[in-house]
Amino acid sequence: MKKFITSALLFLPLFSFSQSAEDSVFIRKIFDFALTNGQCYQVLTHLCTQIGPRLSGSKGADQAVKYMQSVMQQQKFDRVQLQEVMVPHWERGNVCEVSAKTLKNNITLNACALGGSVGGAIKDAQVVEIKQFSELEKLGEAGIKGKIVFFSRPMEPTHIHTFEAYGACVEQRWGGAAKAAKYGAIASLTRSMSLKEDKFPHTGSMSYDTLYAKIPALAISTEDATWLSKAIAAQQNLSISIQLNSRTLPDTLSHNVIGDLIGTQIPNEILLAGGHLDAWDNGQGAHDDGAGCVQSIEALRILKSLGYAPNRTIRAVLFMNEENGLRGGKKYAEIAAESNQKHILAIESDRGGFTPRGFYIDSEQADVLKIKKYKSLLEPYGLHDFKKGGGGADIGPLKKQGTLCLGYIPDSQRYFDVHHAGSDVIENVNKRELELGAASIAAMLYLIDKYGLN
Amino acid sequence: MKKFITSALLFLPLFSFSQSAEDSVFIRKIFDFALTNGQCYQVLTHLCTQIGPRLSGSKGADQAVKYMQSVMQQQKFDRVQLQEVMVPHWERGNVCEVSAKTLKNNITLNACALGGSVGGAIKDAQVVEIKQFSELEKLGEAGIKGKIVFFSRPMEPTHIHTFEAYGACVEQRWGGAAKAAKYGAIASLTRSMSLKEDKFPHTGSMSYDTLYAKIPALAISTEDATWLSKAIAAQQNLSISIQLNSRTLPDTLSHNVIGDLIGTQIPNEILLAGGHLDAWDNGQGAHDDGAGCVQSIEALRILKSLGYAPNRTIRAVLFMNEENGLRGGKKYAEIAAESNQKHILAIESDRGGFTPRGFYIDSEQADVLKIKKYKSLLEPYGLHDFKKGGGGADIGPLKKQGTLCLGYIPDSQRYFDVHHAGSDVIENVNKRELELGAASIAAMLYLIDKYGLN
Repeated sequence: MKKFITSALLFLPLFSFSQSAEDSVFIRKIFDFALTNGQCYQVLTHLCTQIGPRLSGSKGADQAVKYMQSVMQQQKFDRVQLQEVMVPHWERGNVCEVSAKTLKNNITLNACALGGSVGGAIKDAQVVEIKQFSELEKLGEAGIKGKIVFFSRPMEPTHIHTFEAYGACVEQRWGGAAKAAKYGAIASLTRSMSLKEDKFPHTGSMSYDTLYAKIPALAISTEDATWLSKAIAAQQNLSISIQLNSRTLPDTLSHNVIGDLIGTQIPNEILLAGGHLDAWDNGQGAHDDGAGCVQSIEALRILKSLGYAPNRTIRAVLFMNEENGLRGGKKYAEIAAESNQKHILAIESDRGGFTPRGFYIDSEQADVLKIKKYKSLLEPYGLHDFKKGGGGADIGPLKKQGTLCLGYIPDSQRYFDVHHAGSDVIENVNKRELELGAASIAAMLYLIDKYGLN
Repeated sequence: MKKFITSALLFLPLFSFSQSAEDSVFIRKIFDFALTNGQCYQVLTHLCTQIGPRLSGSKGADQAVKYMQSVMQQQKFDRVQLQEVMVPHWERGNVCEVSAKTLKNNITLNACALGGSVGGAIKDAQVVEIKQFSELEKLGEAGIKGKIVFFSRPMEPTHIHTFEAYGACVEQRWGGAAKAAKYGAIASLTRSMSLKEDKFPHTGSMSYDTLYAKIPALAISTEDATWLSKAIAAQQNLSISIQLNSRTLPDTLSHNVIGDLIGTQIPNEILLAGGHLDAWDNGQGAHDDGAGCVQSIEALRILKSLGYAPNRTIRAVLFMNEENGLRGGKKYAEIAAESNQKHILAIESDRGGFTPRGFYIDSEQADVLKIKKYKSLLEPYGLHDFKKGGGGADIGPLKKQGTLCLGYIPDSQRYFDVHHAGSDVIENVNKRELELGAASIAAMLYLIDKYGLN
């Protein structure tokens, strides 16, 4: 009999039935609390409507830092800190006019500067449409010099996870201007990175190549891009005019905002939940990434409100400057490396405040399995996807310290409809979906705090 | 060796690897087609914006029947039929005023008649608030007679599947007026069935008890219900006035709309996909249930466009009168029972046009397993929930003929925000989410057509 018991114990899973039952009850409490006493929607509403645009270096970013610090203080986190970081300071400016002259009309296009673009004024230039970068080389200087290049490849709608469609297309926005400038183009227009046909131009970061000229780089709405492709096909000598007064100012002091529930057993081990506080300046940054910020704070508030005393330090970090520099994420990791703290886990929410789907695990199969064993506890809340995938840009720099990075996965269908556009506003965030995300992150923090990563 | 092969064959699953690979490829084609050549959003846009309200018996319902018939004809389905059905004809009327007189003000409430309510005029009546039906009996005639009863219990936000919250609360809307009339109430007001706090009143069907008086029955918005509860608590003698000219007219001739792809092998076996064409008259019926109608048609169009020749007859049915009578569903099942056709499967989409989650199987465990074996083929498209649950109201009457009924499950978080309200409009439908639902239904029809229900 004794032998039998010993054998049986050998085969006991690390994660036993009684633990699972207790965890199931506590996770139910997390979701109940989030859905009945949620504050994250209210905080996000303030951030969106009272502060709104908050690109790095702007007054809005500064106000957002102070507001979110005050939220953490009101929620009586054990420790609230601002972490200094120098960030780029680019200004869109107040003039952005793009028009197309056809045989019959002068058509104004819904356009916006890409983040980092220089300003400029261009009158009646010819335009050349490009779907793949390889076409640029074929056309060469003969076909491109002195012209505006229009990158018109749409996002591919057949990807079920829309981030894959974005990933396969965004090179046009990020690298288009530099590639075009190599052959003497004088400006670039990019079809907005969106799967929806509408009037909103979508901004986003772009880059120059130091070898070539810096040319104005803009996005036009998907509707206008579709129109422009047809107009070019119908009339070869269509011309485009651009006026833009964007500019880059000197780097500016800004801050990451950090709030802690200090661990009662192993306080120098950190479990981090974060999002980025900066947001593009043409919307309110509601989904990108106000949602991730308020969810991170809310995850801590839920655990604290339920009386959970964490073993490790559980931390919310609102990173500055994810959109056009990642300075906050890099600075955070740099300082973490110098400290005696060990970040064992980091979760980023930066895919919008939509209904939960699961978590990406940014590691090898062994770590995927460590996280996947909690799947059955989270499936009742709509989280089914536990798989290898990206954690998030801000937490990425922590990876080399051995931190396991997770990316919270909400449903992706609507994300690129609003991403980096004027439509990323609080009205397009559903309160329950946002709250379910906060609860999902809280549940994962709770489980890893309790069981570690063994 | 021969013996080995025989044994191996014995253990081959019904659903073999090669079948699975072929099916995986075909289902990928279904989703690709839906997302690149989808027409269902366009059809829904026309239905919502050019026809809009289409309650049974109304001109809108008649126009919707003709339009959807024409859509099926344009798509060259093998057979398109209208099936006659007599339906109730209730009219909301053009007067609906509800005001609350407090010590300081006269406040207009955002209200609407519940479907089936009689009209009436009430001036400055006292109001009594009720959360549970049991309170009515305690108050009795002494506490209720001559007063307006206000049913104020909110939907419970902790249900993850919002239909459970609705199910636990909707008795107030359906049965409240009759229960209140039993004790002499002169009208009922019900807090709208929604988890969102906003200004939209939500209508929906209600019933009278032939033993008691028919009294005006209305819903007020969740915001106004929250306000009214507080106002009553603050001032016991608050009074309410109501003006309403709703009325019921004689039954009217209407139609179910039926389109077929005729089976090439077993044409008298039917696989049905359906939704209901009638919709409440205060919105456009975009999610409820324009979405289900256009998805059902789209599922057939996808299979036809991909050149799939079905073994069995695959049928789209747009039922009339789900909202206030279910006459279409009952008539359809009655005629089906008299024919020599056997309905082996019916799928209803009547939970909104949101991102896919799975299928409910309205049967016993053996049937659940028959459907669940296809889960791995549909998980890549976000369908994880395959479980026992309701099929749908319209297809319910087919159950006694042995039909296996499935309910398409989209994500439920946003459904009751718009359900039966002025906010159920095309702007709140996401094109991709709608298309993914159509593809999910097409995939299930394909699998059951190919493999049957063995």
